[in-house]
Amino acid sequence: MSEVLEGKRLSRRELLTGAGKLAVGASAIAVVLSKGLGLPPRAEAKELPKWPWPYKKLDIDKVAEITYTNWYKGFCCYAVASGILIPLQEKVGEPYTSFPVDSLVWGHGGVVGWGTMCGTMIGTSIATGLICGPGVAKDGEQVANEVIHFYADTELTIYAPKTPKTTGEIAKSKSNSPLCHISVGKWMKEEGVEFLSPQRFERCARITADVAIRTVTLLNDWYEGKYKPVHDLQVNLFQMPTENKCSSCHGSKVPEVPL
Amino acid sequence: MSEVLEGKRLSRRELLTGAGKLAVGASAIAVVLSKGLGLPPRAEAKELPKWPWPYKKLDIDKVAEITYTNWYKGFCCYAVASGILIPLQEKVGEPYTSFPVDSLVWGHGGVVGWGTMCGTMIGTSIATGLICGPGVAKDGEQVANEVIHFYADTELTIYAPKTPKTTGEIAKSKSNSPLCHISVGKWMKEEGVEFLSPQRFERCARITADVAIRTVTLLNDWYEGKYKPVHDLQVNLFQMPTENKCSSCHGSKVPEVPL
Repeated sequence: MSEVLEGKRLSRRELLTGAGKLAVGASAIAVVLSKGLGLPPRAEAKELPKWPWPYKKLDIDKVAEITYTNWYKGFCCYAVASGILIPLQEKVGEPYTSFPVDSLVWGHGGVVGWGTMCGTMIGTSIATGLICGPGVAKDGEQVANEVIHFYADTELTIYAPKTPKTTGEIAKSKSNSPLCHISVGKWMKEEGVEFLSPQRFERCARITADVAIRTVTLLNDWYEGKYKPVHDLQVNLFQMPTENKCSSCHGSKVPEVPL
Repeated sequence: MSEVLEGKRLSRRELLTGAGKLAVGASAIAVVLSKGLGLPPRAEAKELPKWPWPYKKLDIDKVAEITYTNWYKGFCCYAVASGILIPLQEKVGEPYTSFPVDSLVWGHGGVVGWGTMCGTMIGTSIATGLICGPGVAKDGEQVANEVIHFYADTELTIYAPKTPKTTGEIAKSKSNSPLCHISVGKWMKEEGVEFLSPQRFERCARITADVAIRTVTLLNDWYEGKYKPVHDLQVNLFQMPTENKCSSCHGSKVPEVPL
């Protein structure tokens, strides 16, 4: 049996005790990542930089412009990922150059159109996972967590494209949820527009740019050593994977957790 | 302005008319992917196979064993992705060898612990996106869509590990949803166990293997030209990104769509 199959790096005992009983929380992830996950050595690709991939500070206006434009090519997940990774292909080269950003369209519509996590933050998570790597306080997951809070808790959209594809006002709204179906559905209902309308396309293209801007703002801070996480991870707070607006589904039976 | 920023490959007119008014559906995706998304050429990595990445038929038992074992190393998203991509690193080599599978832990707990799309199917989508590439009837998104239906509509878990980390019966349940919070929460309530319990760890490790098995079964069929999609994409059916059990959130006001 290969090393990959041994499963000894993080035993159930470690999950239960070594990580302070927070198996999927920050502590456990730190244990997992500090010990490595068992990838075989890169025998055929020694010339490529190892993960985490090298980062260089990015121009936020350029990231936003690529992201907004690329929404109209491949939708939200692809747009955020390409808005970050294409400038890094240009500034850093490999291994970004070999990464097929085109393969990431599937995140649209809350993952293959199922209305779950807004694809923007799938794009964010892919990028921060590649760039930040292991380490709890600084890792990609913590950066993505902050971006998800921003998406759910902020009146969006903010970004104003230089050359908008659709003119006219795009109303702001706060989703109170990272779910595509909730975020888009509430906005459509308030605006009285259909999903396949130019206004909805434009709203999603702009909110996608907002997410990319937030992500790269945090990544640039992280690169300069100025980034500090504001929010703890959800599982540490709730002992359960969840959004933080419990009453929106469960009613008033479940108290809100102040965050 | 670079070619990346031109945004001419899929104009708003094409989104509205050229794709039969289904902007984010299969037709529109076909338009996007048939025209390319504007990645710069791989000037520095000509020796690597281009996307979509070459596939070889995988041994399903081995995939399941890696996936189950790797859940205990990096949780659901990492486990499914590594269960598929590590055997391809061994059988195919590059470009799989250079892909940092370790960067995918973030998908756990419904994406960074927010309880949205179960991370298993994020792992599936990353793998099928890399492997299947463009083409509506055969593409990675369609395969992932079938796997999401399987997850939501099947009494799981099915997989029986040779050497289980937790002994004792793991009850089966049907989630009726791809959401981590719903799937895990309903199962926990029925079983009377906590999220940070060995039984829940084992349930998630086994359901993760089930998803990897289903994904690779479809990929192997696809590789042999035997794969045919069963379900249409959600946006084509509902004109909205959504699950298909509307009444579970909206009550009986919204009729179920028979699928």
